[in-house]
Amino acid sequence: MLILTLNCGSSSVKYLLYDWKRKRPVARGMVERVTIGGSYIVHEITNLKPITINRECGDHRTAITLIMEMLQHPDFGVIKDINEIAAVGHRVVHGGERFTCSTRIDDEVLRVIQATSFLAPLHNPPNIAGIEGALEALSEVPHVAVFDTAWHQTIPECAYIYALPYEWYQKYGVRRYGFHGTSLLYVAKRAAVLLGRDPFEINLISCHIGNGVSVNAVRNGLSVDTSMGFTPLEGLVMGTRPGDHDVAIDFFIMEKENLSGKEMDDILNKKSGILGITGKFTDRRDVLKAAAGGDSRCKLALEVEAYRLKKYIGAYCAALGRVDALIFTAGVGELSADIRRLVLEDLAGLSIKIDPAKNNLARSRNAEFDISAPDSGIRVFIIPTDEEMVFVEDTVAILEGRYDLHTKFTYSFQAKDYVNKIRHSAFEEEVKQKPEVAGIVAKVN
Amino acid sequence: MLILTLNCGSSSVKYLLYDWKRKRPVARGMVERVTIGGSYIVHEITNLKPITINRECGDHRTAITLIMEMLQHPDFGVIKDINEIAAVGHRVVHGGERFTCSTRIDDEVLRVIQATSFLAPLHNPPNIAGIEGALEALSEVPHVAVFDTAWHQTIPECAYIYALPYEWYQKYGVRRYGFHGTSLLYVAKRAAVLLGRDPFEINLISCHIGNGVSVNAVRNGLSVDTSMGFTPLEGLVMGTRPGDHDVAIDFFIMEKENLSGKEMDDILNKKSGILGITGKFTDRRDVLKAAAGGDSRCKLALEVEAYRLKKYIGAYCAALGRVDALIFTAGVGELSADIRRLVLEDLAGLSIKIDPAKNNLARSRNAEFDISAPDSGIRVFIIPTDEEMVFVEDTVAILEGRYDLHTKFTYSFQAKDYVNKIRHSAFEEEVKQKPEVAGIVAKVN
Repeated sequence: MLILTLNCGSSSVKYLLYDWKRKRPVARGMVERVTIGGSYIVHEITNLKPITINRECGDHRTAITLIMEMLQHPDFGVIKDINEIAAVGHRVVHGGERFTCSTRIDDEVLRVIQATSFLAPLHNPPNIAGIEGALEALSEVPHVAVFDTAWHQTIPECAYIYALPYEWYQKYGVRRYGFHGTSLLYVAKRAAVLLGRDPFEINLISCHIGNGVSVNAVRNGLSVDTSMGFTPLEGLVMGTRPGDHDVAIDFFIMEKENLSGKEMDDILNKKSGILGITGKFTDRRDVLKAAAGGDSRCKLALEVEAYRLKKYIGAYCAALGRVDALIFTAGVGELSADIRRLVLEDLAGLSIKIDPAKNNLARSRNAEFDISAPDSGIRVFIIPTDEEMVFVEDTVAILEGRYDLHTKFTYSFQAKDYVNKIRHSAFEEEVKQKPEVAGIVAKVN
Repeated sequence: MLILTLNCGSSSVKYLLYDWKRKRPVARGMVERVTIGGSYIVHEITNLKPITINRECGDHRTAITLIMEMLQHPDFGVIKDINEIAAVGHRVVHGGERFTCSTRIDDEVLRVIQATSFLAPLHNPPNIAGIEGALEALSEVPHVAVFDTAWHQTIPECAYIYALPYEWYQKYGVRRYGFHGTSLLYVAKRAAVLLGRDPFEINLISCHIGNGVSVNAVRNGLSVDTSMGFTPLEGLVMGTRPGDHDVAIDFFIMEKENLSGKEMDDILNKKSGILGITGKFTDRRDVLKAAAGGDSRCKLALEVEAYRLKKYIGAYCAALGRVDALIFTAGVGELSADIRRLVLEDLAGLSIKIDPAKNNLARSRNAEFDISAPDSGIRVFIIPTDEEMVFVEDTVAILEGRYDLHTKFTYSFQAKDYVNKIRHSAFEEEVKQKPEVAGIVAKVN
């Protein structure tokens, strides 16, 4: 059974064709520069070299047509007939308060997603365009929406209500929604496996650190708080977004610099965060290198980023009372030993102790690591995230009628012997280069 | 030696005349409704009943003239000649980065305070008007400025720089300043006395909870982080201010409701916080009463307020590594056992345990209490704040040439046997009503 997943961004469409029976990806790829001119597709059949083809895609529907064409291409294709695809899983950023779990798409569901677009004007419209394009191309198969916000719908009122006029919540749904839910769900389920515990009995703090950054508090396996809020602007320092700051600054600067709301929005989304402090970089590798070379603003950016992560970890320790594991995931969380070190130093007071040598070794996206010191009260894991597996699995489960609430459902990657074969092979190559890395792989309890 | 302190708000002037030799207040009072019509003075000679006199004060200078007149009044006065006043201490809200401690006012200092007004357009202008009025009335004596922001000038860069364009810091001084500094200084010094430790060796988390709310992290006796930021809008939930929230909400609502920046500013400063959630109250006593009666939004407001305090305490535990004491001060912090209970429950993971009976008994502004459980790793104190003693003492010390940096100076209230006599008498009355309260008074180590 082949499952197609689609992840439409404002100017891109990412896809994966997954063979559920054989539990392996068949092909994956991405159409870039959709709607903005100069678009092209990078298409990769598993274990083969990716190929790139230029093709103008003025809208997301055209991009989806191109993907369907590539999947059936006489030279680069992997299927003969588009109808071999059994179902399509779509990433949808914002599900509002209505969608608490993945949902099969029908006219009513699509209407509600459209009606929710005012909450995510940059994200939901491309998601909807992707759904419409795929419904057109594959009208006979089930389509499933997997929401970034659904995971966080278990957050209690005291953590999602802002101290703002309450009628803004009633009238416009102004509240904390949180994002990165699919990634945070994946790492929470995997952490339960590594701990050898019932997923609904563990408390976790998960740090998803990529270009966007979320920290998530999980109590008894459910999300109870997260750093992103009404939008992905809130919370931690990100590549180009500021996270938490005094809103009075925005009004002050708009007046001083005579900026429009749109101009300020642009600065907050694209010119703040790590870029704002350093004045030149968003990629933490560039920042680390420059800081090591003595650039004081790059050093400062790292310190600010780490300090604020440290404070969120402390805040969620207080909120949860008991924490079983702390998780790092996503690009920076998985690869940057330096940032993890800055975040985690001097946290013994919170029962968090890492083994510095293990932390320093852990720089791979292909294996799960345990970098805790033997006497750490809280285990510290690095778990490469896998959002696409959640898209695939929710879609299959809904297709087969096995999917209940995401809070009751057991994913195949929760099996004790679950292995992501492709990552596993890649990691075996890494171990050949650096045998000591094998010693820090997290063991399944 | 008589010291006058003046604290000018936008529409009020608070004053205290203190006899430094006898260590007791001689008179105190407040002019209310300055500049807005219907103004009056409430004047109180120590140990006598306050009297109220209506007198229109169109500006702060007129209010100061009225105060001088009252102090020399044939019936209600306490001095014969205004020149009996040896010096005047002025509260100034914003000292920017220039003022790191209290400072004797000369033309240059006044000019810098004026130049800093753009950072505190609501607060510094009345402070300046008060200084000018007092300089006119008492031109021959020293005047001292005591800044709310000075205490926080030891906060390190990684905690005061926002992840916003760095040039905003360079060009406009956009950074975390923090407020409530005089109160936070006082309770930090008193905590050192209660702990019996060198004030420069202790780590503290102080919660100033009144209508405005600040939490302060203190390392080795110096402020290293605080919840208020560029302005007093940031941080915790307050009476009418929202504290931390996603700034994208403000822009979203301004568009939806077609609000100007000024209208939004008004909502953020006057209609948010506890008032925003409950829709009707700012006073926590009203909120607690309504919540007990089943009002769900009042219950929610308390939960949100307490939950966010709990998270800040956790965040600063992480930032500090080791914490010796947690302090509650200001109206709500000193009096509301219910809010303290909500904040402090389930914090054993952070080594914070209180004795619920002691917490419940501690409802006085006249004594310092220790509500820690015997096995709490972190001591929990309730310390009634006394900003005016800091105004008085900084002024005297500058007058006598004893004042160095506020970080090296020892206040008289740091003496082991320091007693605020008026409070002490009031507390003795309270103990007569409720003898068991005597048992929770914090002992000086």
